[in-house]
Amino acid sequence: MQADLVQAHQTAAAPAIRRAPSEALLAQLQALLGPRLVRSAAECMQHGSDESGYAPQPPDAVAYVETTDEVAQVVALCDAAAVPVIAFGVGSSVEGHVLAVHGGICVDLSRMNAVLAIEPDNLTATAQAGVTRLALNAALAGSGLFFSVDPGADASLGGMVATGASGTNTVRYGTMRDNTVSLVVVTAQGKVVRTASHARKSSAGYNLTQLFAGSEGTLGIVTEVTVRLHPQPEHVAAAVVNFPSIGAAVQTVIQAIQMGVPLARAELLDALSVRAINAHSRTAHREAPTVFFEFCGGRAQVEEHAATVAELAQQNGGGDFQWATLPEERSRLWQPRHHAYFAALQLKPGCRSFTTDACVPLASLGACLAETLQDIACLGLPVPLLGHVGDGNFHCLVLADPKNSAEVDLAEAFCARLAHRAIRFGGTCTGEHGVGLHKQPYLVAEHGADAVELMARIKRALDPNNILNPGKVVAWDAQPEVSTGVQGRGD
Amino acid sequence: MQADLVQAHQTAAAPAIRRAPSEALLAQLQALLGPRLVRSAAECMQHGSDESGYAPQPPDAVAYVETTDEVAQVVALCDAAAVPVIAFGVGSSVEGHVLAVHGGICVDLSRMNAVLAIEPDNLTATAQAGVTRLALNAALAGSGLFFSVDPGADASLGGMVATGASGTNTVRYGTMRDNTVSLVVVTAQGKVVRTASHARKSSAGYNLTQLFAGSEGTLGIVTEVTVRLHPQPEHVAAAVVNFPSIGAAVQTVIQAIQMGVPLARAELLDALSVRAINAHSRTAHREAPTVFFEFCGGRAQVEEHAATVAELAQQNGGGDFQWATLPEERSRLWQPRHHAYFAALQLKPGCRSFTTDACVPLASLGACLAETLQDIACLGLPVPLLGHVGDGNFHCLVLADPKNSAEVDLAEAFCARLAHRAIRFGGTCTGEHGVGLHKQPYLVAEHGADAVELMARIKRALDPNNILNPGKVVAWDAQPEVSTGVQGRGD
Repeated sequence: MQADLVQAHQTAAAPAIRRAPSEALLAQLQALLGPRLVRSAAECMQHGSDESGYAPQPPDAVAYVETTDEVAQVVALCDAAAVPVIAFGVGSSVEGHVLAVHGGICVDLSRMNAVLAIEPDNLTATAQAGVTRLALNAALAGSGLFFSVDPGADASLGGMVATGASGTNTVRYGTMRDNTVSLVVVTAQGKVVRTASHARKSSAGYNLTQLFAGSEGTLGIVTEVTVRLHPQPEHVAAAVVNFPSIGAAVQTVIQAIQMGVPLARAELLDALSVRAINAHSRTAHREAPTVFFEFCGGRAQVEEHAATVAELAQQNGGGDFQWATLPEERSRLWQPRHHAYFAALQLKPGCRSFTTDACVPLASLGACLAETLQDIACLGLPVPLLGHVGDGNFHCLVLADPKNSAEVDLAEAFCARLAHRAIRFGGTCTGEHGVGLHKQPYLVAEHGADAVELMARIKRALDPNNILNPGKVVAWDAQPEVSTGVQGRGD
Repeated sequence: MQADLVQAHQTAAAPAIRRAPSEALLAQLQALLGPRLVRSAAECMQHGSDESGYAPQPPDAVAYVETTDEVAQVVALCDAAAVPVIAFGVGSSVEGHVLAVHGGICVDLSRMNAVLAIEPDNLTATAQAGVTRLALNAALAGSGLFFSVDPGADASLGGMVATGASGTNTVRYGTMRDNTVSLVVVTAQGKVVRTASHARKSSAGYNLTQLFAGSEGTLGIVTEVTVRLHPQPEHVAAAVVNFPSIGAAVQTVIQAIQMGVPLARAELLDALSVRAINAHSRTAHREAPTVFFEFCGGRAQVEEHAATVAELAQQNGGGDFQWATLPEERSRLWQPRHHAYFAALQLKPGCRSFTTDACVPLASLGACLAETLQDIACLGLPVPLLGHVGDGNFHCLVLADPKNSAEVDLAEAFCARLAHRAIRFGGTCTGEHGVGLHKQPYLVAEHGADAVELMARIKRALDPNNILNPGKVVAWDAQPEVSTGVQGRGD
């Protein structure tokens, strides 16, 4: 998830039946939380929207919880009353995840912000769900270790687990799912479970950790997260290289990965994105498809890998290498990339960005990008393109005037075409943002009705009263595929 | 899972109600499969046992399936009749996974042995579930890529997914769970689902891949597996080093990991194991705690890492380094380690090995091992100890005479103490073998009753007629913790 890549369509979510809490339930919650149960319109409104462009849908009250037990008690009370409960971290999700489409109680976890344990010998840290990624890394200062997952926003760990977030260094260190060792979760029944031990691997039963990770608050509320830490690399080098085409840039990255070069980062910008960052950050990069690379490890290793990639880049027509090894130089080189979203918005004053999250197998990335570039060429709207190339994941920032319904329609249609294109190329409609409200229409196309129906079975089994973030991810009553026999799509 | 580390207690599994197929069902299956439905006592007996020491519990018939559709049809017929279906790969599981404790139909997937696709650009391969790990690697010869997961046995990919297998290079390349991209699974209703696209990451809904991985055939039958491949490393170096104590050996490995050295392998043998392999393989290693290391990568990188580890080993009192870089030398150095299980058995003629699978957080490994060594010292049975130290996973091979009930009782009691000890040290009773029948008694201690009850809810939701490998992993009617309030253990 990139906070710098927000949805911006100011559209209304599908209508839904509100299940408002009774005054009796609110009184019970008030008795539990005192002034930490807030019903003001302003706070409810703020908690009913995220970084997407959806119009807010406020909850009926916000519960500022401080402990796992409080979360459990809030959920148990709401379950008894069949009132929705929506978990909220910092509100940086981008697909409408936190909108209270059925009303209910927002559980704001931001005050659960304690780092509970840093275990250098185990390369793990345990923190409450409201701790943000930057706060965790601040707590790790001096330990020689860091937490790797870096979505654009300073998201909460609970939110990152809930959406299966990732970022620029996922190509090296993995996604939030990969870096989650264990969770403490409050179930729909208000029970507190720990999903796994803190051992590095286990075969002891169903993988509850990975079931709750990515479930977007619809199966349980994550209150504590144990994550993997990584040793700070001894040496880091950064390079910016431009290419004659996006295809050549992609090819270089894929070849490097095939050769076993453990790229720390490989971020693609198209020519328009480079123009945007040049204007925004006063840099003078050539306006051509460009890859920002980072290498890390021992000094000899970094030099070996950098040399390999330089050679591959040259073979693919790349040129104009800019290198940086000192921290401040690297930071100067990379800073414009980190500001690319805001730079892009300035290409078209007053616009919003309608953002996509296609992720395809590496083998299909070149072809999927080529088709997407053709689509962009015919669209009539500016569409800077950014990619976590090593993961097969790229974002198109469709810049449209939110007051111009023709432009909004064009942008939304483009987003839908790209989601279906990613699926057609063997990939997914969302590599790292999550489903929320906005990607639900694509789930059956991506997984098949029978797989989606399995997800709904799990939802109904774990949350029979449909109180946990209802209306998100998977339709409650998803039906299996109607077939004449047992023919399946997977065979 | 290590095939070289088999359970050997010739005990009977808990009695269970057999749900034998009717003649009508058998006739339907026969109509579908012809001579590939086999009812001979010998074949049923062979399919009713694995590498554990449990007495066989044969199924009523064996179905030699050849396609996913056939699996789907067999399962649909059995579901309609509420008759158990047990998936079978090569029978190398070690915890009683394939015993037909309720009778039923064994689905033998060994004829589904086609490698369906090798996608070098995507670093993935897709194979039918009956393909073994060595067969897949044979198919990859010349591609520059390899499949990493290496349990001791030449297990089938389906079986490896089902148990969450791992092996000696998991410290570098991850477990089978980590290396599984997508599965084709037949559900209890005889539907065929693909659990995920082949993209490297996704946030599109619940993680069905990781739900079926490790579910031991109790939630679905895996018929196709898409796995990650890794580039063959350019350079490999191996080293064998002995240490003054197991603690010193463990400390060296943990320090290397903390410093970011990407060890390819780090296998611990205690002094008794070294004695065993010296006798078996005619080597002359010092009979002391010993670590077999492997490093891989670019040449400079390997040298850098090897030098770092050598320095750490010296600081911890290690000595007598033996190095090997040429393939045949490395093979000669490592071969005895690979034969350690058979070497261990020869320490006590006529014995069987009762094997444990404790896996604890790295930070607890030293202490857990120390307590285990004290236990061994008082046991009165020989117990060679082997460890995948970098994962916190170790196996004790308790050598007991299966005809001597006092020895068997001692061995089983030791195994139970070690499972509970691993849990007490914050770890798991099974790092890589799976639950099967044998580890079920420890699940509630490890996860808590509420988490186990969640697992049972998932089982009942996905397999309401309890036909898929019934009696394994989790109790069908697992109950939540009885509590006076909502106090949870995780807070």
